[in-house]
Amino acid sequence: MADHLMHDNDDGTLVDQVMQTVRQRMAGRALLPGAKLPSIRGLASSMGVSKSTVVEAYDRLAAEGAIRPKRGSGFYVAGRLPPLSLAEISPRLDRAVDPLWVSRQSLEAGEGVLKPGCGWLPASWLPEESLRRSLRALARADAATLADYGTPLGLPALRHLLSRRMAEHGIEAAPEQIMLTESGTQAIDLLCRFLIEPGDTVVVDDPCYFNFHALLRAHRAKIVSVPYTPSGPDVALFEQVLIEHRPRLYITNSALHNPTGATLSPVMAHRLLKLAEQAGLTIIEDDIFADFEQEPAPRLAAFDGLERVVHIGSFSKTLSASVRCGFIAARPDWIEGLSDLKIATSFGASRLSAEFVLGALKDGTYRKHMDGLRGRLSRAMGETAAKLKTIGIEPWIMPRAGMFLWCRLPEGLDAGEIAQRVLVEGIVLAPGNAFSLSQSAGRFLRFNVAQSDDPRIFHALEKAMRQ
Amino acid sequence: MADHLMHDNDDGTLVDQVMQTVRQRMAGRALLPGAKLPSIRGLASSMGVSKSTVVEAYDRLAAEGAIRPKRGSGFYVAGRLPPLSLAEISPRLDRAVDPLWVSRQSLEAGEGVLKPGCGWLPASWLPEESLRRSLRALARADAATLADYGTPLGLPALRHLLSRRMAEHGIEAAPEQIMLTESGTQAIDLLCRFLIEPGDTVVVDDPCYFNFHALLRAHRAKIVSVPYTPSGPDVALFEQVLIEHRPRLYITNSALHNPTGATLSPVMAHRLLKLAEQAGLTIIEDDIFADFEQEPAPRLAAFDGLERVVHIGSFSKTLSASVRCGFIAARPDWIEGLSDLKIATSFGASRLSAEFVLGALKDGTYRKHMDGLRGRLSRAMGETAAKLKTIGIEPWIMPRAGMFLWCRLPEGLDAGEIAQRVLVEGIVLAPGNAFSLSQSAGRFLRFNVAQSDDPRIFHALEKAMRQ
Repeated sequence: MADHLMHDNDDGTLVDQVMQTVRQRMAGRALLPGAKLPSIRGLASSMGVSKSTVVEAYDRLAAEGAIRPKRGSGFYVAGRLPPLSLAEISPRLDRAVDPLWVSRQSLEAGEGVLKPGCGWLPASWLPEESLRRSLRALARADAATLADYGTPLGLPALRHLLSRRMAEHGIEAAPEQIMLTESGTQAIDLLCRFLIEPGDTVVVDDPCYFNFHALLRAHRAKIVSVPYTPSGPDVALFEQVLIEHRPRLYITNSALHNPTGATLSPVMAHRLLKLAEQAGLTIIEDDIFADFEQEPAPRLAAFDGLERVVHIGSFSKTLSASVRCGFIAARPDWIEGLSDLKIATSFGASRLSAEFVLGALKDGTYRKHMDGLRGRLSRAMGETAAKLKTIGIEPWIMPRAGMFLWCRLPEGLDAGEIAQRVLVEGIVLAPGNAFSLSQSAGRFLRFNVAQSDDPRIFHALEKAMRQ
Repeated sequence: MADHLMHDNDDGTLVDQVMQTVRQRMAGRALLPGAKLPSIRGLASSMGVSKSTVVEAYDRLAAEGAIRPKRGSGFYVAGRLPPLSLAEISPRLDRAVDPLWVSRQSLEAGEGVLKPGCGWLPASWLPEESLRRSLRALARADAATLADYGTPLGLPALRHLLSRRMAEHGIEAAPEQIMLTESGTQAIDLLCRFLIEPGDTVVVDDPCYFNFHALLRAHRAKIVSVPYTPSGPDVALFEQVLIEHRPRLYITNSALHNPTGATLSPVMAHRLLKLAEQAGLTIIEDDIFADFEQEPAPRLAAFDGLERVVHIGSFSKTLSASVRCGFIAARPDWIEGLSDLKIATSFGASRLSAEFVLGALKDGTYRKHMDGLRGRLSRAMGETAAKLKTIGIEPWIMPRAGMFLWCRLPEGLDAGEIAQRVLVEGIVLAPGNAFSLSQSAGRFLRFNVAQSDDPRIFHALEKAMRQ
């Protein structure tokens, strides 16, 4: 936040700036009434000011009545509950571990910041040359491609290619069952708009990709979670949840689970689909890591034939996150309603992005690039796991592929505090509770092995763990 | 719809295909329970089948109980109300004039289809060469630009440029008050998510851009409308609406109103802002046609200083609709909450799109292109108005600039029926009631003068008006 702030009041004193930051977080709904403010130590270090500056700022805000001190337990936001806020996701957590913290820190990180907690590959790991070739080809495309809107479902040639690629994973989806979106996230957002009403219950894995929490909160959904095991969600507890909460929707990853790197087993997949059928549950299978897979893993959409499973994907992880392009594969009779919603809320996805992605995917070098990338990731996975073990951080499992290592800290350490401590040294971690609805992952961290080669990361971790 | 359909059952008979189309529209929520089905004549012509085929299909669907005939008034969808559907916008209208009809027809129109009803310029009117130059430059950009995510607010250089451009319209917005979005539509969508709760009331102009209706329905807002005069909304009625309905939000265009081409007068602007202040109303000023303006017109955001007015724009109308890029300029204390929502629901806008737009805007030829475009549009405006008058279609006003002519048909003619008739000949019109919440624009059509140079349009209109 600090960088916005510097712009907003260049002439403010440090205390004013801290007060302004807190006011902005409250106004911007990052801090809800009743929410605990960041610890004095935490805010001081994340803003790079002294603790006494934060103390002074908090005292003045308390004098204004904006915040309330609670004896022995820090400061809390005063006032009544405002309209929808994503911070509602975690009313009793400060910004440090709310579900958007990791995203914001990773997206805002300047040059030189190390991001072992970030959810994507370094640009240098992506197929730079085929991206350039694709752009040069686009520069020669016809005027309509350069300047006109796409069709409601999106570039037919890309939908045909996606249909063939999904077939390789056993998923039968005709091009007419595929709709392009701006991103995998927008795909899930559109499906939530189409499938759930405010107040409906949605099941997620615990842990799961933290943005599912933020997204579902934006839809005013009730969120319940089921513990994730190395072979999928705990089916017994999943069944209980279906009975107790009657959810409308379940959002998950099958082949490479985020953050754990686990893979759904065929047995689990069948059980899940049987339960879903009995309960009339729809499942969104988020498969954006598909191309990282080494050996074929089961896909719910393949077993189910896109009856009650909706399959989504994107190209941000393997091709480029700078271009936004994702897709939905769903039952044919849902596509028109989904594209109506897409037109109403974004007037369609980018034709240029779709052409750009198509060009890069069709580039002869793409499969070769992915083969190399898989090898590079599995080497980095081994190396990162080894380095972490030497400082006492243990992987929960060794994933079959992908970029994520879900790791446990030694007894007595809090991942949120560690994350705050190393942030001061320009290192962004992904603390476990950002992924956990039950807040039961306080000892876990998610590491991106492609962003973890710098030794400073492990030195800083070791130091922070000793503090 | 017909094209999807042909893919979905290549081996189906014509009757089956018609039945399938209707089933898909019902399943896809384009046709709600209780909604009137398209007239037999209308569907026969839009699908290019005989009336007897449609009669047979309707009879079989009625036999299935999927639809119900009503003596003398056609067929209606049977069954109970499903979850949210954008077709709820117009439960008693068939697809022909629901708010998404024009968009869908325009977006799906194949080669050779004429689109005087469409809301954007032909690709050939856009700055093709500077778009190509921008893409060639992008192909040489650094790896991060090609492959990495953008920052939460979006490309700083573009936000600085936008800040300077808004200043030319008297709008003071610091780069930190500007957030890039995927499109102007997504900008409004995010603002609705941030500012309104389901059930809140929102005011729109009558007529207004039809997609406002669809978008607000997706947010489950109550929509009320105020008649639009040649100098802005009817202020007396606007005040009544504020008192009776206590709306949270008003969405409008100031400089070049869509569909009427009218311009808000300074007097009206001041009255509106005074009323908004008294009522605690927030105003979204959609200014996507800004660059078409000939003489400077008042902007609500300029008078208000972005206190209760949020200013939005995009580049789809003047640069390229193939790349998706829009922006929000709002009060500083709203920006963090808005970017949290953007990350949660789309994980940020495209960095590549922003770089592409920046490149084209900075291209020395852009202002020259816009000067030429304004002249070309005003010539086309005069020519189209003249041609329409010769066949008895009268412009409501002659706009000061832009691409739209809002025109009245002779007494006794229905724009929706005319639109259906000419669609058979491959001509997409924009019937007035698609823009009118009160459905009081049944005699109006919106013409895009940049899409109206083909004489076949006027021959087909003349013929359809004589039928």
